[in-house]
Amino acid sequence: MVYFNCDYNEGACPEILERLSQTNLEQTPGYGTDDYCQLAAQKIREACQAPQAAVHFLVGGTQANLTVIAACLRPHQCVVCAQTGHINVHETGAIEATGHKVLGLKSDDGKLTAQQVEDCWKGHWADSTHEHIAQPKMVYISDSTELGAVYTRAELEALSQVCRENGALLYLDGARLGYALAAPENDLDLPTIARLCDVFYIGGTKQGALFGEAVVITNPALQEDFRYMIKQRGGMLAKGRLLGLQFDTLFTDGLYQRLSEHADRLAVKLRDAIRELGYSFQVESGSNQQFPILPDTLLEELGKRYVYSYQGKAGEGYSVVRFCTSWATQEEHVDRLIQDLRALHR
Amino acid sequence: MVYFNCDYNEGACPEILERLSQTNLEQTPGYGTDDYCQLAAQKIREACQAPQAAVHFLVGGTQANLTVIAACLRPHQCVVCAQTGHINVHETGAIEATGHKVLGLKSDDGKLTAQQVEDCWKGHWADSTHEHIAQPKMVYISDSTELGAVYTRAELEALSQVCRENGALLYLDGARLGYALAAPENDLDLPTIARLCDVFYIGGTKQGALFGEAVVITNPALQEDFRYMIKQRGGMLAKGRLLGLQFDTLFTDGLYQRLSEHADRLAVKLRDAIRELGYSFQVESGSNQQFPILPDTLLEELGKRYVYSYQGKAGEGYSVVRFCTSWATQEEHVDRLIQDLRALHR
Amino acid sequence: MVYFNCDYNEGACPEILERLSQTNLEQTPGYGTDDYCQLAAQKIREACQAPQAAVHFLVGGTQANLTVIAACLRPHQCVVCAQTGHINVHETGAIEATGHKVLGLKSDDGKLTAQQVEDCWKGHWADSTHEHIAQPKMVYISDSTELGAVYTRAELEALSQVCRENGALLYLDGARLGYALAAPENDLDLPTIARLCDVFYIGGTKQGALFGEAVVITNPALQEDFRYMIKQRGGMLAKGRLLGLQFDTLFTDGLYQRLSEHADRLAVKLRDAIRELGYSFQVESGSNQQFPILPDTLLEELGKRYVYSYQGKAGEGYSVVRFCTSWATQEEHVDRLIQDLRALHR
Amino acid sequence: MVYFNCDYNEGACPEILERLSQTNLEQTPGYGTDDYCQLAAQKIREACQAPQAAVHFLVGGTQANLTVIAACLRPHQCVVCAQTGHINVHETGAIEATGHKVLGLKSDDGKLTAQQVEDCWKGHWADSTHEHIAQPKMVYISDSTELGAVYTRAELEALSQVCRENGALLYLDGARLGYALAAPENDLDLPTIARLCDVFYIGGTKQGALFGEAVVITNPALQEDFRYMIKQRGGMLAKGRLLGLQFDTLFTDGLYQRLSEHADRLAVKLRDAIRELGYSFQVESGSNQQFPILPDTLLEELGKRYVYSYQGKAGEGYSVVRFCTSWATQEEHVDRLIQDLRALHR
Repeated sequence: MVYFNCDYNEGACPEILERLSQTNLEQTPGYGTDDYCQLAAQKIREACQAPQAAVHFLVGGTQANLTVIAACLRPHQCVVCAQTGHINVHETGAIEATGHKVLGLKSDDGKLTAQQVEDCWKGHWADSTHEHIAQPKMVYISDSTELGAVYTRAELEALSQVCRENGALLYLDGARLGYALAAPENDLDLPTIARLCDVFYIGGTKQGALFGEAVVITNPALQEDFRYMIKQRGGMLAKGRLLGLQFDTLFTDGLYQRLSEHADRLAVKLRDAIRELGYSFQVESGSNQQFPILPDTLLEELGKRYVYSYQGKAGEGYSVVRFCTSWATQEEHVDRLIQDLRALHR
Repeated sequence: MVYFNCDYNEGACPEILERLSQTNLEQTPGYGTDDYCQLAAQKIREACQAPQAAVHFLVGGTQANLTVIAACLRPHQCVVCAQTGHINVHETGAIEATGHKVLGLKSDDGKLTAQQVEDCWKGHWADSTHEHIAQPKMVYISDSTELGAVYTRAELEALSQVCRENGALLYLDGARLGYALAAPENDLDLPTIARLCDVFYIGGTKQGALFGEAVVITNPALQEDFRYMIKQRGGMLAKGRLLGLQFDTLFTDGLYQRLSEHADRLAVKLRDAIRELGYSFQVESGSNQQFPILPDTLLEELGKRYVYSYQGKAGEGYSVVRFCTSWATQEEHVDRLIQDLRALHR
Repeated sequence: MVYFNCDYNEGACPEILERLSQTNLEQTPGYGTDDYCQLAAQKIREACQAPQAAVHFLVGGTQANLTVIAACLRPHQCVVCAQTGHINVHETGAIEATGHKVLGLKSDDGKLTAQQVEDCWKGHWADSTHEHIAQPKMVYISDSTELGAVYTRAELEALSQVCRENGALLYLDGARLGYALAAPENDLDLPTIARLCDVFYIGGTKQGALFGEAVVITNPALQEDFRYMIKQRGGMLAKGRLLGLQFDTLFTDGLYQRLSEHADRLAVKLRDAIRELGYSFQVESGSNQQFPILPDTLLEELGKRYVYSYQGKAGEGYSVVRFCTSWATQEEHVDRLIQDLRALHR
Repeated sequence: MVYFNCDYNEGACPEILERLSQTNLEQTPGYGTDDYCQLAAQKIREACQAPQAAVHFLVGGTQANLTVIAACLRPHQCVVCAQTGHINVHETGAIEATGHKVLGLKSDDGKLTAQQVEDCWKGHWADSTHEHIAQPKMVYISDSTELGAVYTRAELEALSQVCRENGALLYLDGARLGYALAAPENDLDLPTIARLCDVFYIGGTKQGALFGEAVVITNPALQEDFRYMIKQRGGMLAKGRLLGLQFDTLFTDGLYQRLSEHADRLAVKLRDAIRELGYSFQVESGSNQQFPILPDTLLEELGKRYVYSYQGKAGEGYSVVRFCTSWATQEEHVDRLIQDLRALHR
């Protein structure tokens, strides 16, 4: 069986494993105060052209989301996202457990539009009973989205502008940010994201690290006491240097980008092959998640050799499934999958 | 100006005020441990034919909702309601502030169906990633709903059955329960509600009291330590006898029912008059809230003499508004409103 | 039996009951937006010489405490109080339920000193691991304290100064503020309290009202969105005018002060009589709570005619008990109690 | 500089690093559902002689504590610990952030006694106002304690018995459990701990792993839905097999015990040398943390070559400091430290 169901089946890229081994017996201070974390933070600030940004390293995405959101909001404020947003549907109510409502807006591809945000904020303040309603304060987006879609520069600029006009904070979940930025259709980059968002994170877990997400806080008003928040939510890794080491490695010599490009290239290869067979997709994208709509009979056969992620029915006899590639995907596995798809299609 | 915008504009029915005066200087123990609370609880247990039920008196509806829901759920569990449910849209995220997700399902009239509940529960447990999703555990309904609709016995029985089959708790918000039970189309009663729900509350604030809601917990598993919950959430009234006195008065000699019938009779009178003029309603009901769809021009004129509650646009040149009657509504005010509606309609 | 166990056994002073009756059928907007609330808030601002203060009316003390504290703190911040502080020992963990640690410091009389606060804050920031410790941000005091003690002007000024120097917020729980200000040894007044505290509340429940506490927020930074907080915590009374009416009445023609003076005069009468018999007190004060240390044998006899509040053993054969007077206490009851004490002492 | 300040300065034992490398490119299911986690759980169940126990792997200690405690308590319940307990003083209010009060009892060595627990529980239920007080439900202990002390079998049995008689849950924080069990004075073992506690965790982070704590839930009533809790609190590691692999390695061929014994042997060597010089200790123990009371002048000199953890003043001219050994401590470093201590003592 070859696993295409998600992008975190394997361990870490060899460069990371090697550095962990090399530095294993060094004695460093704990909790992210070591030199490796400083170094990694500095490289990320440079990559983002954001010299004043605060950079913190957390172990996982749900942890990053709940820590960031709870740190930024007052008790009566809520976070607005696409209905498909990870915080809305796949974090076991983690945000609500910190006391905040998650307000999901309709979306077909997992993106929010500037118009949706404006309507939501304007609607709240126009309502004479607004004190009886959770106050929208933060916009949560993900790039790429949970459905693989990638934000354009124009979309993100419009979102950012609406947020700033309405006093909203813009938070970008970048669990797959590398894969978003490496997609052929992408026209965004880290400095632009850093400029347009108040806070975002750069994913490591799905992008070549054993684990780890780098939270970048560019809005100075959100930087205060953030380390208390990490500790309180259980996210302060004792041997914090493990995170610093990994991100330092990823942000050295363009490794993060190379790993992302590898995954996207293979995803596009797979996408194009499926498209050629005449199948359509729930969402079109060039990032590492592909959501083809395939015949159930074909899927059943395919399931004997490959693991994919089942998403749901899509009309009579068809289903949407997800195939993920990653930094670790072997091209021969993709080639074989394509061959098998072609064979089963006949 | 006459206010028809809500059902809590006035104070209390005279019988209550009189008893408050009569007993004012009596010395009673605090926090709901006094004889009036015992007496009122006993009368409510009798009215519900639920001799084992625990009855607690709280000051307001949001307080009752957040206290009950937080008391019944474990941290990872969520409460499911209609998207229009009061807890979902008009309590400033009070439930989420206790740590729990509120999952809103589609509804036109504010009701949930047994099928919706079954689909939601079955869907959760069928999902292989269910541990990543807030676990549905409680169904919240309101009778009458926020849109005035009234549950039938058959509907509530079906809901209750599905809940019990799926391990779900059924909670009924009865802020306007008297008005629901007094509606012409109603075929429910307190004993049936007590039998079918795990916990519910009988509204006082909108139903003749100065304030107060009587929480009735029929499921023994939910009764333990509930007074701790009330205290912790700030809902334990020092002079608890104020609540006992009011509910004792309301549940003596059928007063609660008489006050409810008065309001519904006037609501139906208004409804029928509006209907006669050819206007339709967002939801049809015989309870004390009426949601007619009226021309904006007419509403503007009407707004010079009457206060109604604006709900939203309903097509070009029309809007939905809410008119409420209550125990305190004067029939002459309703008659005058009808006259004016007829005059403006011409 | 005559109850001296607490100061909330009776209903409300007659002036309040009368106004409730007079205004009962007036139609007013809900949730504290009515004229009575505006009027009462204005009178309180004037009494406090604090024209910019925000004044909000809540139903009870625990509700006021949890709403204020949760509104002012970020998630990692804690509130510091005397170990005997109401929020620390008698609110069922209500503050913790909003996510915040309560840090209790030693105190014999329920007061905190400026030195204790300074040590606590300086100690936190001097600790190199301070990010691993809940950050002290607010000082909670009560006047009078849970043990009846009354702050002097010098003490409160010192506390306030230390708080401002250390970036701490000062919050005064005034559940018995009238009784504190009417005590013979008191040299504080409302304008001074308003000047020295960031937020405080003026108690109504124990001071002549049916219920109600007036929260006064003088620090502008703490005023924003406070009504959302009230609603979210379940404290927004639908018929808010009930609160406005009561505080308007209490702050008209010096009623609040007169009621307080009555209670304190009777408490001092009782205290002096007990002192004359040679007994000592846990804490010396002239406010409405008296904590004499009396022989258990005497207490047993006394308990047949009077209800007091048992506090704990105080050496072999002696116990501390609490006697409360209130606005409603009848002088003849106090006189009779004194007579009985004298008789039993012999 | 040699670091003796804590026991998590280095990475992992070589056996763990090697296995991470060997298995790096294997594809495994995520979130702890992989075979390595099953294997490790099974080995731990066997080591504990607890075939029905649920075993979960979390990344860190604060995460484990907040997840376990929030999973076990209802909202009004609190956890009782020594005042020095990690959850009380070094987790930034993490437990309170989940809504629960932490009640710290006096302790000189970080242990709780059965008598303290009994007094606390009995006192709560004897108080007529107990509904106004957070309800004690769980006892939190740590072995070894934050001060290095080690529980005896008799102490733990007494604690366990009192807990069961009073309906209290017993939770043992085993961040340094290996070091406790390897101490010369220890007479406990894993099966006994599993039998006497309702839930405990076996520390990995400080005991040879890169990170990781194994939560063992022996009380079946506490096992339900625990994986939801882990996810909700942000503790579910995507590549969960990293945790399984590490614990599988530690619990193979007695590695965990060997690593622990190494640390304790060196700690005892250091302790005995310090004792020989005539110095005393805050707490006497044979586990890996030593808290000698040393002259400030000596400490100043020592601080030029060694990093220790400063604890506080201990009389004129003396301070308490902490020296930690660990699985990674080199004997030659300890020998050199002892030499330097002797030299400086002269």
